[in-house]
Amino acid sequence: MTRRLALVGLGPGDPDLLTAQAARVLNEVDHLLVADKTAQHPGTADLIAMREEICRRHVRGPWHLVAVPDPERDRDDPTDYAGAVRDWHEARAIAFEATLLEHPGDAAILVWGDPSLYDSAIRLADRIEERGVVDVEVEVVPGLSSVQLLAARHRLVLNAVGGPITITTGRRLLEDATAGDNLVVMLDGSLTCRRLPERAAWNVWWGANLGSADEVVVAGRLDRVVEEIAARRAEARAARGWVMDTYLLRRA
Amino acid sequence: MTRRLALVGLGPGDPDLLTAQAARVLNEVDHLLVADKTAQHPGTADLIAMREEICRRHVRGPWHLVAVPDPERDRDDPTDYAGAVRDWHEARAIAFEATLLEHPGDAAILVWGDPSLYDSAIRLADRIEERGVVDVEVEVVPGLSSVQLLAARHRLVLNAVGGPITITTGRRLLEDATAGDNLVVMLDGSLTCRRLPERAAWNVWWGANLGSADEVVVAGRLDRVVEEIAARRAEARAARGWVMDTYLLRRA
Ligand SMILES: C[S@@+](CC[C@H](N)C(=O)[O-])C[C@H]1O[C@@H](n2cnc3c(N)ncnc32)[C@H](O)[C@@H]1O
Ligand SMILES: C[S@@+](CC[C@H](N)C(=O)[O-])C[C@H]1O[C@@H](n2cnc3c(N)ncnc32)[C@H](O)[C@@H]1O
Repeated sequence: MTRRLALVGLGPGDPDLLTAQAARVLNEVDHLLVADKTAQHPGTADLIAMREEICRRHVRGPWHLVAVPDPERDRDDPTDYAGAVRDWHEARAIAFEATLLEHPGDAAILVWGDPSLYDSAIRLADRIEERGVVDVEVEVVPGLSSVQLLAARHRLVLNAVGGPITITTGRRLLEDATAGDNLVVMLDGSLTCRRLPERAAWNVWWGANLGSADEVVVAGRLDRVVEEIAARRAEARAARGWVMDTYLLRRA
Repeated sequence: MTRRLALVGLGPGDPDLLTAQAARVLNEVDHLLVADKTAQHPGTADLIAMREEICRRHVRGPWHLVAVPDPERDRDDPTDYAGAVRDWHEARAIAFEATLLEHPGDAAILVWGDPSLYDSAIRLADRIEERGVVDVEVEVVPGLSSVQLLAARHRLVLNAVGGPITITTGRRLLEDATAGDNLVVMLDGSLTCRRLPERAAWNVWWGANLGSADEVVVAGRLDRVVEEIAARRAEARAARGWVMDTYLLRRA
């Protein structure tokens, strides 16, 4: 029997940012699956708690949240980033597949932000489908992304009039900043903008843990505010054990 | 007295894609303002009707929707695009200001999609604030963008693993496609991807009127599907008098 597998974008943290469609789907399915990284990062237990909070707010009646332990990711070989990601996707597909077999019925995978941006749920679902062990019908329920909340908090239009926007990662920033002059940076564990040449030529709009109670935002000319950002980022990480931050860089 | 001026992202058309926060704000304010382009484009009356539909679905009790006639935009001088946009912004700020003066109380400006992407509401609100004629406190309520719905419909992750995404316009596509190999194109009135060199080297995921009853999507290798896209686009435009479409281009 085919079961429904919905990939539901929850938005970037604030339960108020769920769409009506996402709330409806959470109510329709039998199980809510969430990737659980607490074995690797004990501090992320509150990320699971934030999902509980979203369910409390939007699901009528009892719900069944299943934490699926995330497999270890091999970070030892930086020369084969794509290969390491592939292996990890396979292990993850098998873990979710096992969870689906254990819990018959329709399921949703809870996705942070929007499934279309730097998220593995779609590739995970593709792989579960390809493997053919569980018979699923996949649907994607979009959610608000952290990029949009960053823009809202700073009252920003992401594009200059008629201009383009590059969305990239910390890993690629130094390279991409030579071509683009308007960049959104995600997945940047080490505040790579500190290493940009000509920091006085850039403005930055930064936000961490957007949509949560301890959200913090800073904006200004990069050379003037980058140390403040580094300090606020370190504080936020010390308080919770993790921090999620993103920023827009625009040439002045 | 300071009044609230909320810029509320409604999502790309489907009332189901409104966030809980957006619905709450629509219920809290006294007036809902929407830019009305029907004088220039009579076919867009159904865009106003789609806003009514969203209100019917999400606002309890009566609501007060005010259509603010959009000033004429000077398209005669293509050499001064930025200047023409600036003049139009000023005329628009004055038109919204007059509407706010006529209707005291808190207001929301209804924004298609998300206010952070190729939308003028934030610059409009900035200008109203700067002019200082009406005393407003501006807030931005993010909404789902058409880009996210495009990705959801095609079950797409917008980035290749770890790779960047460029969001651009039809006007800039030919230039931006020489640098980027993964581009989202918006505001493309003439399906500029038809004019890309090496069309066999690109894949395309296209969608028009996403989230509406006559949504249409096409995907495939650009050289193989571009004429189908052109035909479906022409059909959609003929049916309603307008079409809104967006697409992802990725080098194969
Ligand atoms: C694996 S990606 C997932 C992005 C997610 N799919 C989205 O749409 O926002 C994680 C990155 O998203 C950004 N991010 C996610 N949530 C955030 C938040 N609440 N505040 C700031 N940045 C956030 C950070 O750059 C983080 O490194
Ligand atoms: C002025 S921009 C506004 C974009 C909007 N702020 C957003 O977040 O989607 C209009 C462009 O958005 C895209 N668009 C908006 N709504 C759409 C829809 N329902 N389906 C496809 N494309 C859409 C088209 O590229 C259109 O030319």
